[in-house]
Amino acid sequence: MPVLQAEQLKKIGTEIFVAAGASVKEAKMVSEFLVKSNLAGHDSHGVIRIIQYVKEIEDGLIKPGAKIEVVRETESTALLNGNWGFGQVVAKEAMEMAIEKARDKAASVVCAFNCNHVGRLADYTEMALTNDMIGIAMVNSVKGVAPYGGADRMLSTGPISYAFPTGTEIPFVLDIATSVAAEGKLRVTLSKGGKLQEGWIIDKEGYSSVNPEDFYNGGALLPLGGDTAGHKGFGLGLVVDVLSGILSRAGCAYQGEKKGNGVFFEVMDIQSFVPLEEFKAQMSSLIRAIKSSRVRPGFKEIMFPGEPEVKTERVRLREGIYVPEKTWEEIGKIAKKLGVNISDPIRETNNFHKEQL
Amino acid sequence: MPVLQAEQLKKIGTEIFVAAGASVKEAKMVSEFLVKSNLAGHDSHGVIRIIQYVKEIEDGLIKPGAKIEVVRETESTALLNGNWGFGQVVAKEAMEMAIEKARDKAASVVCAFNCNHVGRLADYTEMALTNDMIGIAMVNSVKGVAPYGGADRMLSTGPISYAFPTGTEIPFVLDIATSVAAEGKLRVTLSKGGKLQEGWIIDKEGYSSVNPEDFYNGGALLPLGGDTAGHKGFGLGLVVDVLSGILSRAGCAYQGEKKGNGVFFEVMDIQSFVPLEEFKAQMSSLIRAIKSSRVRPGFKEIMFPGEPEVKTERVRLREGIYVPEKTWEEIGKIAKKLGVNISDPIRETNNFHKEQL
Repeated sequence: MPVLQAEQLKKIGTEIFVAAGASVKEAKMVSEFLVKSNLAGHDSHGVIRIIQYVKEIEDGLIKPGAKIEVVRETESTALLNGNWGFGQVVAKEAMEMAIEKARDKAASVVCAFNCNHVGRLADYTEMALTNDMIGIAMVNSVKGVAPYGGADRMLSTGPISYAFPTGTEIPFVLDIATSVAAEGKLRVTLSKGGKLQEGWIIDKEGYSSVNPEDFYNGGALLPLGGDTAGHKGFGLGLVVDVLSGILSRAGCAYQGEKKGNGVFFEVMDIQSFVPLEEFKAQMSSLIRAIKSSRVRPGFKEIMFPGEPEVKTERVRLREGIYVPEKTWEEIGKIAKKLGVNISDPIRETNNFHKEQL
Repeated sequence: MPVLQAEQLKKIGTEIFVAAGASVKEAKMVSEFLVKSNLAGHDSHGVIRIIQYVKEIEDGLIKPGAKIEVVRETESTALLNGNWGFGQVVAKEAMEMAIEKARDKAASVVCAFNCNHVGRLADYTEMALTNDMIGIAMVNSVKGVAPYGGADRMLSTGPISYAFPTGTEIPFVLDIATSVAAEGKLRVTLSKGGKLQEGWIIDKEGYSSVNPEDFYNGGALLPLGGDTAGHKGFGLGLVVDVLSGILSRAGCAYQGEKKGNGVFFEVMDIQSFVPLEEFKAQMSSLIRAIKSSRVRPGFKEIMFPGEPEVKTERVRLREGIYVPEKTWEEIGKIAKKLGVNISDPIRETNNFHKEQL
């Protein structure tokens, strides 16, 4: 089991992207975002994406150095054409613009199209909260989710993120798919050979299934809420598709030709409503109250959004990041092909930090 | 079974509220909102509330004629103190301000505190879409929902509404609670003597229950997503509590003294991003695509958010609104006490428009 320190992985990612044609600045930025996802425990958005991104650069899908164009702009809004640069580069610029506009105008919205995979939404909404603002983000992507009552893929998993400063060590950062589960979880179950929970997916005929293969054979994910309340997840998924697909001009998930992410970012300045210290004090009281709630039978602890990620990050900063053998091998091959000399990882054979797996 | 026409009910509501101390303008506005809910099929927010509101006026909780104060204001945001006037009056003014600000500044946020029950959120987000804008609304209220993994009531059912113009007869209007079910559905099941679906509520010890009485005996509603994905509904419920409770200064649901609704409204001007006609054309293509999806076994039709309400309204405008005997009796008593002469409803004894029940 290869185990690497965050800094090692950032260096490796940066060198590979530079060798693949990116500028040092871009390469470093993208690598940092990927490693941040690993640290947070979301390995599906971590260094495993190096493999995808290098291939996309080779295929001309990601265009390193692409110039971001401002297509429309007001004092409080902007629409960006990412011209198919790295998604992270486009998204970071979009959020920076939104933050600057919210500083002046209290509420701002910035959308982007022609944008590749941006990674985890939480990384962008967190940029707002470190500026003592509220960050909101939505993106759409390729279709994989059925409408409530429908059998065909029509929507993407359409994640939504909200981030609020809390005045404590752990900020409030929600980052959730509007489907009942993210596609990455299906892939993990498939590779382990297990069964899914009832209510996650349907097969290609629209029947409920617990076999992850049925998803990849023309089935679909179900919207958040399942058979009882799936109209809610479906409705939220549509909202994401409209704001990040239509308002952003990126296109909707159902449109077959869709690729990359449509981006919708919003920022609000807290002090236009309530003094910052009061907001933070109220946030920490709310979190304290919630966490002091009695725990239900079958549960261990009440965690608020963002808390699991910070806890995982603390462990991984200390103990390193576990990279699956197959991922590490593929990264090694890419490095070799591009003439990048990558450092050897530590190898652990015992049940090293099990909580990472 | 008393059946009344919408206009009859509006007149009755207006006269009762005027007799209870409201101005004609307020009384008419509130009655119109209530009857609009009945027309949409959401009777829990309809004329049944006349009973509650008259009692709240008598108890000094609703203060007819209260002056709405602008506590903070920027070009694109405002914070209103509703001074405990009718919730509908405060909310309507808040949304009108948000629409005007978005016309100038593309994106606006207006919050309100000291605000009574505002009724259905969709009524306000629809005001934005009839102005060819995007409307977003969230409110919090008294606690009734447990955190994911918790056994105590901590959050309100925290509804969220989004409305988009579609360019077709039926606009897109999502209005959903962030709990798996709204409290009104528990009350309906309780009065009919039936059982709930598994996963809606827990009893006072935190065990899953299908008996609606367990909710009223100290139990709690569960967040959207249930045991599988309840962290998502919980996270969204927290977002509603923060935006409509902390940013608005109205207070959070867990705070025992909480009453009325904290209000968070947002409006976006479409044309700052994409020409209006293009937006509407894309919306109607999206809806057409979704509705053309194959229907799953066990489902009849795919409906998009707002569609069931428009269909019910068409029926009820034609056939009248069914008011339960008990509600009608109580309204009759209030009218008599206030010296208001109310018209007799038609009475239907057969299975008159069953789809209303």
